[in-house]
Amino acid sequence: TSVKSKIGRGQITHYQLNNVTTTADPEGNRERVLLLTPLARFYPEYWNNLLKLSYPHELIELGFIVPKTREGNAALAKLEAAVKKVQHGPKKNRFHGVTIMRQDFDTPTPQNEKDRHALAAQKLRRATMARARNSLLFTTIGTETSWVLWLDSDIVETPPTLIQDLARHDKAVIVPNCYQRYQNNGKPEIRPYDFNSWHDSPRALEMASKMGKDDVIFEGYKEMATYRALMAYERVDGGDPHSETPLEGVGGTALMVKAEVHRDGAMFPPFAFYNLIETEGFAKMARRLGYQPYGLPNYLVYHYNE
Amino acid sequence: TSVKSKIGRGQITHYQLNNVTTTADPEGNRERVLLLTPLARFYPEYWNNLLKLSYPHELIELGFIVPKTREGNAALAKLEAAVKKVQHGPKKNRFHGVTIMRQDFDTPTPQNEKDRHALAAQKLRRATMARARNSLLFTTIGTETSWVLWLDSDIVETPPTLIQDLARHDKAVIVPNCYQRYQNNGKPEIRPYDFNSWHDSPRALEMASKMGKDDVIFEGYKEMATYRALMAYERVDGGDPHSETPLEGVGGTALMVKAEVHRDGAMFPPFAFYNLIETEGFAKMARRLGYQPYGLPNYLVYHYNE
Ligand SMILES: Nc1nc2c(ncn2[C@@H]2O[C@H](COP(=O)(O)OP(=O)(O)O)[C@@H](O)[C@H]2O)c(=O)[nH]1
Ligand SMILES: Nc1nc2c(ncn2[C@@H]2O[C@H](COP(=O)(O)OP(=O)(O)O)[C@@H](O)[C@H]2O)c(=O)[nH]1
Ligand SMILES: [Mn+2]
Ligand SMILES: [Mn+2]
Repeated sequence: TSVKSKIGRGQITHYQLNNVTTTADPEGNRERVLLLTPLARFYPEYWNNLLKLSYPHELIELGFIVPKTREGNAALAKLEAAVKKVQHGPKKNRFHGVTIMRQDFDTPTPQNEKDRHALAAQKLRRATMARARNSLLFTTIGTETSWVLWLDSDIVETPPTLIQDLARHDKAVIVPNCYQRYQNNGKPEIRPYDFNSWHDSPRALEMASKMGKDDVIFEGYKEMATYRALMAYERVDGGDPHSETPLEGVGGTALMVKAEVHRDGAMFPPFAFYNLIETEGFAKMARRLGYQPYGLPNYLVYHYNE
Repeated sequence: TSVKSKIGRGQITHYQLNNVTTTADPEGNRERVLLLTPLARFYPEYWNNLLKLSYPHELIELGFIVPKTREGNAALAKLEAAVKKVQHGPKKNRFHGVTIMRQDFDTPTPQNEKDRHALAAQKLRRATMARARNSLLFTTIGTETSWVLWLDSDIVETPPTLIQDLARHDKAVIVPNCYQRYQNNGKPEIRPYDFNSWHDSPRALEMASKMGKDDVIFEGYKEMATYRALMAYERVDGGDPHSETPLEGVGGTALMVKAEVHRDGAMFPPFAFYNLIETEGFAKMARRLGYQPYGLPNYLVYHYNE
């Protein structure tokens, strides 16, 4: 689809937007990227990393959705201050625009890592996250959006060329590998963080076939072993950062999507969809719509270490 | 959800939009209505009816998606001429804005009524319609949208108070009864047209339980009797136009939706969703998200008679 014309109330404006493209060379083609972040906490490291992205800022639109909780209010204050600073600063650093949404519905689960990862809390929590992502997405995606880059607020380190690197694969959906830095007896090391990017297994499919329609399979719980092959473990030390692998599930910590995939209707199901939910359900929806997601096992982004 | 602030590249604009409401009194609360029409043919009767809507035009945004076919090109030319005329005309008639999209993907099926209603063609046709609706919706829904009114391009007659009348029920999803005028031996009569608004039946649910996940049930085909109770037949002559009935399936010829339902992720599935597709799948999705659709059996809108 393309936008033919947009005609305002006062003047008649004609945008001939048949040239809104989504290509492997987004910078050359001046493609607009909508960078979306559900944000419950504000990390200065996330913000600094964002500012260092080398993709032209005037082609990046930012969108945030912040929960209406005490924690959300604190994050919002910091976010607004940071946004004002950059949008008032040197022109070349300014983003095309920034939208901040508040999330009316309640956050049903605790925010510390141990509690929020407990299996019982997952379904409600992931459903809430899915609704937040959908609201943010469908309110901000516009006539000129070529790409949507999902980036969690606790992704504190990426290559500055993240957007160009992901786009150059020219995939409908593409996801880097999300790791975490930590100290091992005082030695800096890295370890896998996000387990939502995976290849399906006969076992998980068999599990799903025996489940009720409303049940959800979650990855990474020993109570529910799926034997799926996780991209997290497919990284090869010194391997080509641009080697690709097709995926059936994707995580959302960093996730690049051609806008047409979302426009066709691929969203983050807040309910069981083929026994999957949120970003994993999104991957299934994209596939049902004919789009194959890919992952980059050796291309790393880093999650904050609490 | 609500929009907290929207901050542009040049100046810093703060919209305090916590007061974007969706209420039974949209006019009193100055609520923005996004009126969306997938449009393969341009009917002057549709356009004239649209112009007569008494809801303040400055609160109505129009959105169209037109297929890239010979027929679509002809419709587009007429639509653009009509849009220019009204947007250049007296200020009180002008709409808030108009977006026209072109639909890149092919229209897979013939456009005459008999052929397009053939059961075999339905799945592909309804999937194409669903993608068109999703593209239009997710490209045009914005930070200020309170309501989305779906109105097919061949709805040639509605009460001028359509928007106010539907909104006053304060339902997440509400659908009038879509009829058709015809001549019976020279006498003007009316008959049901849209059969997609229905109450589920044990029989249809049983059929679905025995179907494959990707199979779709269609309403109104004798090859596939569902015994669902159709709103089309629930109209009572002289009955209260504001009597409500809860529905499991809805049609899209005229369909009013609170923007938050779509923002939460309720879209028009272009694939089998609980064995339903497009507007009927949308109703199921809305219900999965906790929103109950309603119909108005005695509130009529009229479809063109080919
Ligand atoms: N809008 C919104 N964002 C949230 C909420 N909970 C977490 N987030 C954000 O969503 C992203 C993922 O959440 P997080 O707690 O980091 O999940 P995890 O890393 O998968 O355990 C992060 O960017 C959070 O800041 C919420 O309730 N509402
Ligand atoms: N964008 C788009 N609109 C279409 C297409 N086919 C039909 N329409 C429009 O979609 C609506 C429903 O289609 P229609 O053929 O009237 O369906 P029916 O009345 O249910 O048989 C009408 O407003 C049509 O003008 C298509 O391929 N693309
Ligand atoms: Mn996180
Ligand atoms: Mn029609």
